[in-house]
Amino acid sequence: MKNIKIAYIGGGSKAWARVFMKDLALAEDLSGEIALYDIDLPAAELNRRIGERINAHPNTISKWDYKVYPEIGTALDGADFVICSILPGTFDEMEGDVHLPEEYGIYQSVGDTVGPGGVLRAMRTVPIYEGFAREIKAHCPDAWVINLTNPMTACTKTLYDVFPEIKAFGCCHEVFHAQEFLSCAVHELMGVPRPHRSEIIIDACGVNHFTWITEANYKGTDLLKILPEFIDKFYEQGYCEHVGSQPQEFRDNPFRYGNKVKMDLFRRFGVLAAAGDRHLVEFLNNSWYIKDKADAESWLFHLTTVAYRKQDRLDKIAQSQRIADGEEQIDVSHSDEEVVELMKALLGLIPPKVSNANVVNVGQMPQLPLGSVVETNCVFAHNSLKPVTSKPLPNDVNALVLRNAINIENTYYGIKERDLNRIFEAFINQPLCSSLTVAQGKELFNKMLAATEAYLKDFYPSTRL
Amino acid sequence: MKNIKIAYIGGGSKAWARVFMKDLALAEDLSGEIALYDIDLPAAELNRRIGERINAHPNTISKWDYKVYPEIGTALDGADFVICSILPGTFDEMEGDVHLPEEYGIYQSVGDTVGPGGVLRAMRTVPIYEGFAREIKAHCPDAWVINLTNPMTACTKTLYDVFPEIKAFGCCHEVFHAQEFLSCAVHELMGVPRPHRSEIIIDACGVNHFTWITEANYKGTDLLKILPEFIDKFYEQGYCEHVGSQPQEFRDNPFRYGNKVKMDLFRRFGVLAAAGDRHLVEFLNNSWYIKDKADAESWLFHLTTVAYRKQDRLDKIAQSQRIADGEEQIDVSHSDEEVVELMKALLGLIPPKVSNANVVNVGQMPQLPLGSVVETNCVFAHNSLKPVTSKPLPNDVNALVLRNAINIENTYYGIKERDLNRIFEAFINQPLCSSLTVAQGKELFNKMLAATEAYLKDFYPSTRL
Amino acid sequence: MKNIKIAYIGGGSKAWARVFMKDLALAEDLSGEIALYDIDLPAAELNRRIGERINAHPNTISKWDYKVYPEIGTALDGADFVICSILPGTFDEMEGDVHLPEEYGIYQSVGDTVGPGGVLRAMRTVPIYEGFAREIKAHCPDAWVINLTNPMTACTKTLYDVFPEIKAFGCCHEVFHAQEFLSCAVHELMGVPRPHRSEIIIDACGVNHFTWITEANYKGTDLLKILPEFIDKFYEQGYCEHVGSQPQEFRDNPFRYGNKVKMDLFRRFGVLAAAGDRHLVEFLNNSWYIKDKADAESWLFHLTTVAYRKQDRLDKIAQSQRIADGEEQIDVSHSDEEVVELMKALLGLIPPKVSNANVVNVGQMPQLPLGSVVETNCVFAHNSLKPVTSKPLPNDVNALVLRNAINIENTYYGIKERDLNRIFEAFINQPLCSSLTVAQGKELFNKMLAATEAYLKDFYPSTRL
Amino acid sequence: MKNIKIAYIGGGSKAWARVFMKDLALAEDLSGEIALYDIDLPAAELNRRIGERINAHPNTISKWDYKVYPEIGTALDGADFVICSILPGTFDEMEGDVHLPEEYGIYQSVGDTVGPGGVLRAMRTVPIYEGFAREIKAHCPDAWVINLTNPMTACTKTLYDVFPEIKAFGCCHEVFHAQEFLSCAVHELMGVPRPHRSEIIIDACGVNHFTWITEANYKGTDLLKILPEFIDKFYEQGYCEHVGSQPQEFRDNPFRYGNKVKMDLFRRFGVLAAAGDRHLVEFLNNSWYIKDKADAESWLFHLTTVAYRKQDRLDKIAQSQRIADGEEQIDVSHSDEEVVELMKALLGLIPPKVSNANVVNVGQMPQLPLGSVVETNCVFAHNSLKPVTSKPLPNDVNALVLRNAINIENTYYGIKERDLNRIFEAFINQPLCSSLTVAQGKELFNKMLAATEAYLKDFYPSTRL
Repeated sequence: MKNIKIAYIGGGSKAWARVFMKDLALAEDLSGEIALYDIDLPAAELNRRIGERINAHPNTISKWDYKVYPEIGTALDGADFVICSILPGTFDEMEGDVHLPEEYGIYQSVGDTVGPGGVLRAMRTVPIYEGFAREIKAHCPDAWVINLTNPMTACTKTLYDVFPEIKAFGCCHEVFHAQEFLSCAVHELMGVPRPHRSEIIIDACGVNHFTWITEANYKGTDLLKILPEFIDKFYEQGYCEHVGSQPQEFRDNPFRYGNKVKMDLFRRFGVLAAAGDRHLVEFLNNSWYIKDKADAESWLFHLTTVAYRKQDRLDKIAQSQRIADGEEQIDVSHSDEEVVELMKALLGLIPPKVSNANVVNVGQMPQLPLGSVVETNCVFAHNSLKPVTSKPLPNDVNALVLRNAINIENTYYGIKERDLNRIFEAFINQPLCSSLTVAQGKELFNKMLAATEAYLKDFYPSTRL
Repeated sequence: MKNIKIAYIGGGSKAWARVFMKDLALAEDLSGEIALYDIDLPAAELNRRIGERINAHPNTISKWDYKVYPEIGTALDGADFVICSILPGTFDEMEGDVHLPEEYGIYQSVGDTVGPGGVLRAMRTVPIYEGFAREIKAHCPDAWVINLTNPMTACTKTLYDVFPEIKAFGCCHEVFHAQEFLSCAVHELMGVPRPHRSEIIIDACGVNHFTWITEANYKGTDLLKILPEFIDKFYEQGYCEHVGSQPQEFRDNPFRYGNKVKMDLFRRFGVLAAAGDRHLVEFLNNSWYIKDKADAESWLFHLTTVAYRKQDRLDKIAQSQRIADGEEQIDVSHSDEEVVELMKALLGLIPPKVSNANVVNVGQMPQLPLGSVVETNCVFAHNSLKPVTSKPLPNDVNALVLRNAINIENTYYGIKERDLNRIFEAFINQPLCSSLTVAQGKELFNKMLAATEAYLKDFYPSTRL
Repeated sequence: MKNIKIAYIGGGSKAWARVFMKDLALAEDLSGEIALYDIDLPAAELNRRIGERINAHPNTISKWDYKVYPEIGTALDGADFVICSILPGTFDEMEGDVHLPEEYGIYQSVGDTVGPGGVLRAMRTVPIYEGFAREIKAHCPDAWVINLTNPMTACTKTLYDVFPEIKAFGCCHEVFHAQEFLSCAVHELMGVPRPHRSEIIIDACGVNHFTWITEANYKGTDLLKILPEFIDKFYEQGYCEHVGSQPQEFRDNPFRYGNKVKMDLFRRFGVLAAAGDRHLVEFLNNSWYIKDKADAESWLFHLTTVAYRKQDRLDKIAQSQRIADGEEQIDVSHSDEEVVELMKALLGLIPPKVSNANVVNVGQMPQLPLGSVVETNCVFAHNSLKPVTSKPLPNDVNALVLRNAINIENTYYGIKERDLNRIFEAFINQPLCSSLTVAQGKELFNKMLAATEAYLKDFYPSTRL
Repeated sequence: MKNIKIAYIGGGSKAWARVFMKDLALAEDLSGEIALYDIDLPAAELNRRIGERINAHPNTISKWDYKVYPEIGTALDGADFVICSILPGTFDEMEGDVHLPEEYGIYQSVGDTVGPGGVLRAMRTVPIYEGFAREIKAHCPDAWVINLTNPMTACTKTLYDVFPEIKAFGCCHEVFHAQEFLSCAVHELMGVPRPHRSEIIIDACGVNHFTWITEANYKGTDLLKILPEFIDKFYEQGYCEHVGSQPQEFRDNPFRYGNKVKMDLFRRFGVLAAAGDRHLVEFLNNSWYIKDKADAESWLFHLTTVAYRKQDRLDKIAQSQRIADGEEQIDVSHSDEEVVELMKALLGLIPPKVSNANVVNVGQMPQLPLGSVVETNCVFAHNSLKPVTSKPLPNDVNALVLRNAINIENTYYGIKERDLNRIFEAFINQPLCSSLTVAQGKELFNKMLAATEAYLKDFYPSTRL
């Protein structure tokens, strides 16, 4: 049994840490220490206590040594893996990111990746990640660093730009949802039960949350060829991979959607956008799918409010508290996440594994700039992550992806140089901001800066354009 | 004296042919035949008669043998140079290009390069240029081909894509205007008379009509460093390189402008866009400088109507007629154009010359796709045109240029494949179309196709999306 | 069970066809037709008869329909897979390739890949493969084409250059031998039985027969780190993966070797050359490991003579005859080859598989020219082969590989243009030819051309420099 | 008149400093300070005194302020230009570089660029240049740095690698000699007096001393087309651009040659190697043109001995002394060098100038690695040096150039890392070392290290492989 140290940075306020700890508890070939660090120390402590509950659970195979560290450096010291999963700022800051643009007719369904909200969030996150990269370089330069924080692309870029020898990748499950969606198509058209997503073999490429599936195969059947029939059947009513084709089911949950945008994009371009519709629309001119609130409704997705997120967070914390206190039983079973599998592959414990990841473009996606962070298939093997060259995107999809990739790069470099003018030009050039005049853009940008000022002022010479 | 054959394709309805013939008449080291071909045969004949008038003029040094050819092949046979300068379709078609989008709130100041008008014009032009490329390959594969037709980038791309060994380049004087503008700044700030534009040494790169000056120098003075002072002085009232800083002068002429957009872009980006403001705004989100007619007015440029072009053309034809008939004297003097100088350099008659040209990107502009057509400095020498590697554009300017370059490539490949869906995606992705919903875009595209159907139907399987 | 057609081009005189047919006989999820074509029609017929024997064998799971075609076109019609495995010319021609250079002090241990023999063999092979590519384009453009013929790189290059949309790859088991060698190291150093080569996970890149292993792992142990100890132990006496460390065993078989060159190169460069020593030395200056016959002996490898090959071939044909006639029992069991597994992956019948293959460089090996054929890991999935980006070679190894890669490209383009001068410059620039003066090189080249003239004269305007 | 500061680093023992000072004395638009620094302080002082003599000369237009600095930092402070022209080590060290390899049958005609001598010289030079780069960064980061020292490529590479923002280029007149050679061809074949080399317009690319002319034109005549006739006439007897076609003239001077190698290479490859034959042969397998001393004789070039160089240096120093003392008159007239012209272009005092220079490859030569230092045409303009994209080399010439370019890169990186094993692999891979066994190579390398140990020991952890 491999004895390792995993440093978990953040994770204090999310249910994801629990999921990860349970998967580790069931990893029979792994054990060691889980070093918990969060700027919210009590949150880390809460996770530790949940860890103890998991250790005590009868299903648990591998008991881990959970430790809370008040300093990031000691948490990282000697780590084999580092998991980064933070909320940059609080939901109060996110409120400005998501809702201030509405005053200018800009609607966002997520607001954490691109668009005005994504830019502001990056402004908060990149300086924090610069620090992480420096700490990792100092304390565990050989560790594998797995990023889970959004904006994924900018976070991963920061890690590599500050510490080029880092062994880091960004890990996101949005591509899984597209595999689930294709699994539904298999079920509906081929008359078989829904196969597990891992049986849907894909090639995909793009930038995180705007990755496109260019090849998809289930046991020798080319799924992109049969998809048109599926879409003809479900385009109007929608089809959600989580709850099937009953609109009333996905209409109630602000994180769900009917995949109508995905289906529409497939009709236009012949390849399948991998992320959920709420993400996809944010990479496109706002006139296309999200001109106003009614658009969201007719395209069968939600504008997830931050108010909803706040309540959701309170619920999750309360649940964590109950679990830690033993008031609620924790269920130790395998999740559908893949991080632990990828770790095993990197340790050489299982055969090489092909999965999608966000890493620096060394040629796996020649259509995007070398050095930018892209999402493609990669081969994970012992101490080795090698991107797989991807099938080129159709020209017109590439136009959309490249525009966003360049915007993300420019946002990043503007932040790196702490240059508000450069950041603003990346802001006003967001597809979601297409309808803004330059004057409106400046006004909105300044309002948004003000709303998140507390998290910027230590890093930027000024917080006003 | 070098004896050469120049095939002039088109030019029947433009004053530009006259300018060129006069420059040739004053080229003491060149003589030979000028082979005139135009689908409007009488127009070619009119040019021939003007040529005879030039031959008879006392200033003329070199008398040329003007011949009209009814077939393009014989016009091209054995040519050393080919000049391509056509109007694709008539101004009736251009009327659809420019004015139909206004029904959807899309305004265009030129409408021949990018934007909805540029796409439709490319649809008419590319198939014609495919024919030119094949004829050149068959009749004069070693000739130097100089393109003057818009859309410049797509025309030049077509020539190279159909006949990769072609020796072609696109030639445009918009960069000269920016040199003139900088010459005005020299005059205003340094207290010297306006130097000739050729004394303003620049580095520039981009795509035609959206080329940016990244270095500019007059006798050792860095002009981009002194430009802010000039702009502070003239931003509000505008400054036209043709008529100085008196707004009333440039407000009357629909081809003129006050350079306020150029100055505003310089303030934002620190580099100088080279083309006239009427071109520049068409490469940017329409919300930025051309949301409506009032925007044009406040930014001191004109929306040139096609009605005005029609009248202007009639005037020029009438003048040509008068000159051919001897009713109006022709003035044989050097123009400010450079084509004849470039020809001399290519013939090895003068030292190598550095000037801007549109050619396939072999690395002179690593930010844009290899194989796309870009505009940069080039060295013209004997039978040799070599692009000069250009100073990289600032990141945020690159974002704007790259988006347009990709759109132009995608427009071209859509046309090459006669695939209206692909062309439409390049159409709806035009910055000028940012405010259109997809449904509106389709409606407008179909209307525009219908308006130019006569020039499409022979080339496309369908003229309706 | 998937019903497919496999066209087998060549294979008439090799035992390899037998191996492949037996693996197919044991593939439970595959069946269909095996279309046999060989310019030596009786040889194809012999294979058919062996196929019938296999069909009749009790172990056989899948009975195939073996058919002999006198024309390549009909053999290819509708094929799903094409296997190309030919001997270009006869062993008489190979005799010139291998032994004529000895008159000039140039020794070759194989003579079919690079070096003077490799160049001449390419001259015979490329024109044949040009024909194959055209036939495949005409008869089965969607087939997956698997090349087994040497020179591997030039054959694969030809297929892609003539028919760029081809789905082809070159397949070679030399990398397996290096995995076996590493498996020996695992056994000797870790005190465990030799693991199967598939458990040795590697990253490798280079050109065929000169591919280098840059990462190797067995269950989490970094094998390149433990290799120095193994080498210290066995450097002097040698160690052959087939027969262990008893020199007398591998000294008798002209295809075997003691891996002393491989070990020496590892000491110099820190990465492990993948092919057998007999191949490796041919990619290096002849003064390094093969200055004369004594060098071969002291480095523990053989100069395989063509006389030996001739006898070996006679033995194999005799055996084939006996099997076909029922005089010798055929043993139907799984081989250690991987081709059938790769076919299954391409059919989507098994999960995606990572294995090394020779394909056009699209960025998987940025150190070598894009468009050249390189060998790296690839992901084989349903109707999809995607190269994996490889760990860069150390600078000094890259110098050696790049030199050969460029030579192979230049040999190919010289042959494509049927330009003996260009081919000669690639010939004289071979590392094995380093000791030749230019005059000697010309003399030798002409002698070698004369020796293989019968197979060149139909393709080249002249067969004398 | 422009007032500038020029820091001259080195130059104490060469006649070149004198030439440069005289050209500056005749530059009517330049004046200022010439800051002299040399580790041999008296040599710098001697140059200062010669400078005073030049200032006093009646031809002198611009009197410069010559100052000697004992520290490099103060010499560089505020400099507008830095000239680097040093002898790395003494001629005693060079004796080892050039003559030790002869014991192993390796002959060198120059020994300062590539080959065993070039590698050892680079080992001495690169660490010195690392220091220069750091000093320039600290004292005059905006200065234009002109390198004249060999090995040119490695020196220029070092400057850029240590200080990437440096504005540096390497300047070499070998290309001029090829223009002179072509000027001879014009004279001999076209019946006109020899034109000045500046009238021979060329495109050239490669690495310094192995640059190839791919286009050459004199007033519209393609010189590469007429060269075969010239070569047929003079191949046997040779033709030296300095002294014409009289062999006895160039046979006496160890720096001269009959261009027979250049002519032979042109016959083989169709393009013209630009440097003198003594340089060219060092980039090629030693079996080609320099297998032994007799080869040099039959190919009409010299193996310049270091003994000759030592005497030559004594003569020049003596002359310098006489000039400084007023015992010998100095002749102040324009040289044929171009450095002062390039400086004027960089100051914006003259129009942009096209000339060859050695700079980092940003795409001007896509056949060679980006980031390596290459020699091509460049446009020199105000504060701007832009490489011109060059015509690609023929495939077979590219094979030769690329091999050397990679060797030079590997030599550089081996030195940067102070890794003797890596340097040795670049050493043994030199074309001139082709005939060495690895054991011989190691022996020779160690002997050469010992011979230059005094200049290595401060920089390398060990001076023995």
